Amino acid sequence: MSTLMARPARASVVDMVQILLPGHANALGAAFGGSVVGWIDMCAAISAQRHCREQVVTASMDDLHFHAPIKVGWTVSLKSRVIAAFNTSVEVGCTVHAEDPRSGARTLTCTALLTFVALDEKGNRLKVPPLQLETEEEKLAAREGAKRRADRLARKGVDLSWVDLLTK
Amino acid sequence: MSTLMARPARASVVDMVQILLPGHANALGAAFGGSVVGWIDMCAAISAQRHCREQVVTASMDDLHFHAPIKVGWTVSLKSRVIAAFNTSVEVGCTVHAEDPRSGARTLTCTALLTFVALDEKGNRLKVPPLQLETEEEKLAAREGAKRRADRLARKGVDLSWVDLLTK
Amino acid sequence: MSTLMARPARASVVDMVQILLPGHANALGAAFGGSVVGWIDMCAAISAQRHCREQVVTASMDDLHFHAPIKVGWTVSLKSRVIAAFNTSVEVGCTVHAEDPRSGARTLTCTALLTFVALDEKGNRLKVPPLQLETEEEKLAAREGAKRRADRLARKGVDLSWVDLLTK
Amino acid sequence: MSTLMARPARASVVDMVQILLPGHANALGAAFGGSVVGWIDMCAAISAQRHCREQVVTASMDDLHFHAPIKVGWTVSLKSRVIAAFNTSVEVGCTVHAEDPRSGARTLTCTALLTFVALDEKGNRLKVPPLQLETEEEKLAAREGAKRRADRLARKGVDLSWVDLLTK
Amino acid sequence: MSTLMARPARASVVDMVQILLPGHANALGAAFGGSVVGWIDMCAAISAQRHCREQVVTASMDDLHFHAPIKVGWTVSLKSRVIAAFNTSVEVGCTVHAEDPRSGARTLTCTALLTFVALDEKGNRLKVPPLQLETEEEKLAAREGAKRRADRLARKGVDLSWVDLLTK
Amino acid sequence: MSTLMARPARASVVDMVQILLPGHANALGAAFGGSVVGWIDMCAAISAQRHCREQVVTASMDDLHFHAPIKVGWTVSLKSRVIAAFNTSVEVGCTVHAEDPRSGARTLTCTALLTFVALDEKGNRLKVPPLQLETEEEKLAAREGAKRRADRLARKGVDLSWVDLLTK
Repeated sequence: MSTLMARPARASVVDMVQILLPGHANALGAAFGGSVVGWIDMCAAISAQRHCREQVVTASMDDLHFHAPIKVGWTVSLKSRVIAAFNTSVEVGCTVHAEDPRSGARTLTCTALLTFVALDEKGNRLKVPPLQLETEEEKLAAREGAKRRADRLARKGVDLSWVDLLTK
Repeated sequence: MSTLMARPARASVVDMVQILLPGHANALGAAFGGSVVGWIDMCAAISAQRHCREQVVTASMDDLHFHAPIKVGWTVSLKSRVIAAFNTSVEVGCTVHAEDPRSGARTLTCTALLTFVALDEKGNRLKVPPLQLETEEEKLAAREGAKRRADRLARKGVDLSWVDLLTK
Repeated sequence: MSTLMARPARASVVDMVQILLPGHANALGAAFGGSVVGWIDMCAAISAQRHCREQVVTASMDDLHFHAPIKVGWTVSLKSRVIAAFNTSVEVGCTVHAEDPRSGARTLTCTALLTFVALDEKGNRLKVPPLQLETEEEKLAAREGAKRRADRLARKGVDLSWVDLLTK
Repeated sequence: MSTLMARPARASVVDMVQILLPGHANALGAAFGGSVVGWIDMCAAISAQRHCREQVVTASMDDLHFHAPIKVGWTVSLKSRVIAAFNTSVEVGCTVHAEDPRSGARTLTCTALLTFVALDEKGNRLKVPPLQLETEEEKLAAREGAKRRADRLARKGVDLSWVDLLTK
Repeated sequence: MSTLMARPARASVVDMVQILLPGHANALGAAFGGSVVGWIDMCAAISAQRHCREQVVTASMDDLHFHAPIKVGWTVSLKSRVIAAFNTSVEVGCTVHAEDPRSGARTLTCTALLTFVALDEKGNRLKVPPLQLETEEEKLAAREGAKRRADRLARKGVDLSWVDLLTK
Repeated sequence: MSTLMARPARASVVDMVQILLPGHANALGAAFGGSVVGWIDMCAAISAQRHCREQVVTASMDDLHFHAPIKVGWTVSLKSRVIAAFNTSVEVGCTVHAEDPRSGARTLTCTALLTFVALDEKGNRLKVPPLQLETEEEKLAAREGAKRRADRLARKGVDLSWVDLLTK
């Protein structure tokens, strides 16, 4: 029986901003993928940590899509929240908007789903608190998250012939 | 009709190494997720670029799984190759092994699938060369890649109720 | 006569998070001053940019106080907003809280005041929009900001004997 | 009674150089404020450490003014020294010159005043050695430093209505 | 009598890639020397570590020559291997090729020789395994390495009048 | 006939400091070779630039020796100066001292010799100003530099069997 108290989903919302500097860019003057993905991982980890109240580590990333480029000088705004909590993991969603500082126009440039597990100091997985879902939208998103998790675990078990190409 | 000459899949294999330094680590003395994902993105981008012979940008990441932690002082070895080529995109697989320098023991710590698109200098998508598949294993992996692509596009179109939670 | 439309002060509020990683720390395992000040500068610059809708550059920093150390593994939360707008500059306030991920306890660790100027592409200073103050608290803070600006300019003109020690 | 031996002010002079690389720049091709402030913090910390002979941490920054932009490719020269020593803190002044490598012309681009406290390994504040002032200029600068410290502490206690706007 | 088992020279070959991003470049849009030398040091250290099976530290660098510039957006490919093993040190050679992603043309841009020593946890030097040389080319390179080592040690002992200019 | 005016060797002396932070360290808590070598390259490049009054790029590094480890928390002091000027290149010497902030004890931890060439905006090599040697020690060091240059060019032409092992 879990003794962990449920926490509301909205308590895990995290906002993060960056200015896209030349040091984050590729040769085309747009965001280097690795810079953005590093920020996504940090923003989402803080959402997971706020919910779990433990050190967390990234377990997986999925459905990370770049919808539009981000140019040097633009503001990058990330927002993340816990979508679903399972036994020893949470699924966190993260959106990335880019904002042209002159026009103020905002574009959704990237979306991603990540899962995190909470670890104790010896590296053992810990139970995570249940997620308190307060609106119909939150409940729907959590149900979809549970389905995605089942698909993810199913995919993780198969289709690894490409891994053989790289490891044998 | 495509005039691009096919290139063999094995020509896109890229090897990359790093030593996991304290500056890449989290508070637990293990690899920070964002550091590893940044290296994966760079390694896979070079595979895509070797195949496409154009500047490429990351379009998506999927099925990125961390299987085991990487400790400070260990060697990190990434290997990537193009698995499948489509009309204007390629799917690249990347594996990450960690190696304890004292014992020499190697562990598969991370696997990931990425897609890249090739762009001209104005940012328009370019056709990419077909992939010449030489072994049965390569052909199987490419067929699975085509199926993953169909699933990815299907998933991209739906299940976005979590995005609404973050953007409305 | 200014033709720039006033913008509400609350529209410039910016939230930013970081995890304090070993690469941001000093030899004592706490935040290196330079890391935190770099984040303050970026967070505050985005507040200034949201208000001015132009590229901005830092003109000054004042009254930056570190009240408590930030330990490796803690979450760092920055929040900034425009306090006062003058003819060609804005004053931005920034607070930094540290959060122990296990207890969730938050401590105010740093406060700072920065001024920014907006520049056109040739580097000329631009007029900035007036600040629309909606509450008594905002009006009080803006009046204090105007007084701080007068003091700052007064201090800037004198007391420079220490500069002579370093430049002659 | 302090048993710490006084050290001459000039023994704390520290010189530091950097080349402004694209990775330190903003979208306008000039120094990003955060890069320069990070260097100022490090240079000044070394002056404080040379005087105190203990690990020091930044307590405050004031009167940091950017007088002119620094362009990519220019040499950045920082110089710092202890201006005044108090009971458990020191005030350090830092100047930043930019140098066009072709013409050799040097411009004073930034000045800043910082205070540091010395800490033992448990994080307790330590007494710092008195400052031996050898010239009239050094004595004048130290007197002004003492006055600035009084003003700083006075300002630290009041005028915090802007902090309320960000924390309530 | 050494009880360390010889390891074949080819087992120490390490491949590493990077994309030259703007953050690695100088004001001319080409690789900053320090970025490339940092990668050389890391790649060669991994070769040394694979041979020694211990933590290694850089002891020296020699004959590092930049033959051609590397432009932003190009792929940088490093390759290193142990050339010769001595009593408590190894000599590692490293080559750096740059590759224009569009044409695929590769240029040898840098070569370097480094020596590493293996250390135990207290920082004492350890004996390193002998190098098993399997081809005539490997034997020739190792003989030249032994000669270079003798020259290096001879040079290390003399010609230090320039050091006096900087330290007195 | 060169129309470039000679500049005194002492005008090229450059001082640079760093605090060795955890982000610069290896898994043993001492300086990562690549961090130190990057600082050496930057410090020496500024000496070369002060003499040449042009953008310079690193041409070679030699006789770089690490004499002692640098621990996290120590101050790193680099000093460099032009030793000898040739037709289109200069030789720069650089020393690195580490300083324990508590004891103030300084140790010479690294020495290195670098050559730089000056380039115009199209990347063509430029003549460099002659070096005005004012003391017997400077003249001796410059003569030794000329001899080292002859040896370096001689070594550059031969002994490349190790390069064949990595490139064929």
